[in-house]
Amino acid sequence: MDTLRVSSDRLKADFTALSRFGATPQGGVDRPALSEAHLAARAWLRQRIQSNGLELRLDLAGNHLAFLGCGPPDAPALLLGSHLDSVPDGGRFDGALGVLAALEVLHTVREAGLSLPVNLEAVDFTDEEGTLVGLMGSYALAGHLKADDLLAPRGGRQHLLASLERAGLSEAGLLEARREPSSLAGYLELHIEQGPRLLQAGAQIGVVTGIVGICSYHLAFIGRADHAGTTPMPDRLDAAQGAAAFTLAVRQAVLQDFPECVANVGMLRLLPGAFNIVPRRAELSLELRSADPQSYAQLEASLLELAKVEAAHYGLDLEIEFLNRHPPTSLSPLAQQAIVQAADSLGLSHMSLPSGAGHDAQSLAPLCPSGMIFVPSQAGASHSPREFTTWDDCLNGANVLLQAALYMASELIS
Amino acid sequence: MDTLRVSSDRLKADFTALSRFGATPQGGVDRPALSEAHLAARAWLRQRIQSNGLELRLDLAGNHLAFLGCGPPDAPALLLGSHLDSVPDGGRFDGALGVLAALEVLHTVREAGLSLPVNLEAVDFTDEEGTLVGLMGSYALAGHLKADDLLAPRGGRQHLLASLERAGLSEAGLLEARREPSSLAGYLELHIEQGPRLLQAGAQIGVVTGIVGICSYHLAFIGRADHAGTTPMPDRLDAAQGAAAFTLAVRQAVLQDFPECVANVGMLRLLPGAFNIVPRRAELSLELRSADPQSYAQLEASLLELAKVEAAHYGLDLEIEFLNRHPPTSLSPLAQQAIVQAADSLGLSHMSLPSGAGHDAQSLAPLCPSGMIFVPSQAGASHSPREFTTWDDCLNGANVLLQAALYMASELIS
Repeated sequence: MDTLRVSSDRLKADFTALSRFGATPQGGVDRPALSEAHLAARAWLRQRIQSNGLELRLDLAGNHLAFLGCGPPDAPALLLGSHLDSVPDGGRFDGALGVLAALEVLHTVREAGLSLPVNLEAVDFTDEEGTLVGLMGSYALAGHLKADDLLAPRGGRQHLLASLERAGLSEAGLLEARREPSSLAGYLELHIEQGPRLLQAGAQIGVVTGIVGICSYHLAFIGRADHAGTTPMPDRLDAAQGAAAFTLAVRQAVLQDFPECVANVGMLRLLPGAFNIVPRRAELSLELRSADPQSYAQLEASLLELAKVEAAHYGLDLEIEFLNRHPPTSLSPLAQQAIVQAADSLGLSHMSLPSGAGHDAQSLAPLCPSGMIFVPSQAGASHSPREFTTWDDCLNGANVLLQAALYMASELIS
Repeated sequence: MDTLRVSSDRLKADFTALSRFGATPQGGVDRPALSEAHLAARAWLRQRIQSNGLELRLDLAGNHLAFLGCGPPDAPALLLGSHLDSVPDGGRFDGALGVLAALEVLHTVREAGLSLPVNLEAVDFTDEEGTLVGLMGSYALAGHLKADDLLAPRGGRQHLLASLERAGLSEAGLLEARREPSSLAGYLELHIEQGPRLLQAGAQIGVVTGIVGICSYHLAFIGRADHAGTTPMPDRLDAAQGAAAFTLAVRQAVLQDFPECVANVGMLRLLPGAFNIVPRRAELSLELRSADPQSYAQLEASLLELAKVEAAHYGLDLEIEFLNRHPPTSLSPLAQQAIVQAADSLGLSHMSLPSGAGHDAQSLAPLCPSGMIFVPSQAGASHSPREFTTWDDCLNGANVLLQAALYMASELIS
């Protein structure tokens, strides 16, 4: 079993075929969840699953599953997968690599005629990227999705309803898509890193230790609108000053005191917004992320305190609107051990690192031992047509997924 | 003549009557140039001019003039006035006080039966505030208005054309509205200060030394969009950092090195503008003002240099788009002397100061001796329903306008 390898040719042919769905002139894909391009990609996937001699299963969240009965009939399934949807104007690798590699692992195990202590399933989750809700399919399968999550979703309510209808899905179905956790032996996901750390460290495989917690706020600094010609500078209550000082302070604080965390001020606007009026209000978005629960809480408190300090310094009022919070997710030590074992057996260099982006694995982690394998992203680019991972790295990742799955299968039931 | 005073009752009645046109629930007026409210105010003004026994004259720019033949038939006219248009949701005093005080001066001189070396005219200029073009009527009368100024005006081309049609005016007429400069003996304008300096200094009358030069730019700091979760902070090229640092540096530089100048960053936006994407582009507006030509040039150069320094500091590119520049305007020493003389004769305290806002006087200053009288603005507020000047201050201003006009009339021709 240690010498088993996936088929590079078959995986590459699948990858090339899939990349045509939603292909953009710049070499990426535009395949938002339940768009025509995404539905066409899924039609192709269904055909590939069935022509592969696997059993096609669709759940009420639209998740596409391929089942391989390589274990006892009543054994739980080790789930392998990711997602086929992309961000608008995204890349070919994000999500797609993980689904195709999972399918290839099932094909390889089936062809080898292996009997395992568990069955295997490959999964394509619906709407990981959040053009509708975000992690929608995996949340639904894991039983986390609530009716409230569908009322004011990220992509807008009307867009969600129209998209569900296009795909033959329904709100009611989404809320009933929960799968019995005892049917899940574990979850493994291969994904591109979407950052530069593996390349910077010269490592071929990333062993993901956890997925960052994400917390977001709207902040507003409030001053007073004044004539920008007739009001002397010392007399102004310029809301832009507080927002600008905070934007700089956020970066400084993270660099100095939270080197393992990140934060972003990605939106900012001044009101009323005129050349000749001192801004009365500056609104900005704040997002912060940390893989470690303790620094996550400290970072959040520190940045909110900085906002208060800068507002006070410029004589401004401050409004803090909390938006949402996902706690950091630790991934299974068993899964990490399986990935390390697999990389070592394949002679691949590896490093442990947290994921700075959200993934379907965080939906599964509370239910069953879950893990993630990263492969290097050239230039750290992602969510862009510039996204690229060399074929050797893709293939290495697929073989690590295969070997880690075999290792986990034996350890989970032994 | 030194003891001549305007009628407080008549001026107040006019002020009350005029304030009804475009009145807002908050106590201000909403009377943008050539709007229905503005045209109604002008219809009232025409009636007031004619019932006052003055001669009504309208020019091709829609400027409304009241002529008093108190001098020799071929003598030039000393022009007194301001504008009746307001900013959207503006105050009752800005412009309106100056027009009504000018009319009241003519009325007072006519009733006293004075013979002067010049004739007098009161003027209500079209579109001082710039909801269409800005200083449009006075620019047209002075011969500064060019066809290019009407192609992409501040308020939009369609809005300009529709407004001209509503008022029975035309583009061609605007460009032919130039008045022969030799027909102008001088120009005096009473206006509220729109800032806090007179109140802070405890002065009743402001003797305006000049009108600030105004210069404006669009700046763009350009970095690189990256995933705000997976891209470590030190690897980012965050356009928001450059814009924020510049916004703070502008204020610091003016406070420290250019205490008589002002600058404003009134608009700012980040692109693409998402919680989870490092901003690739930050666009902002920069406006700077100075009454002194030398510090005007130094301030402009200093702030553009600061933009370059901050862009370089954060590894960003910089785009600088020059928008427009009005040079500082010096007001006539004779007019300043007339205003000082008038204030002294009325026992009113006064101080000299530049105007931080633009005014019609800057259109006239290149043509004839021009001056401005300021009266205190409570809380320095303007362009707002909060705009307020006490009646005593309004009346003081009108009497200074009267006495300064009489002084100028004698000095100009003597």
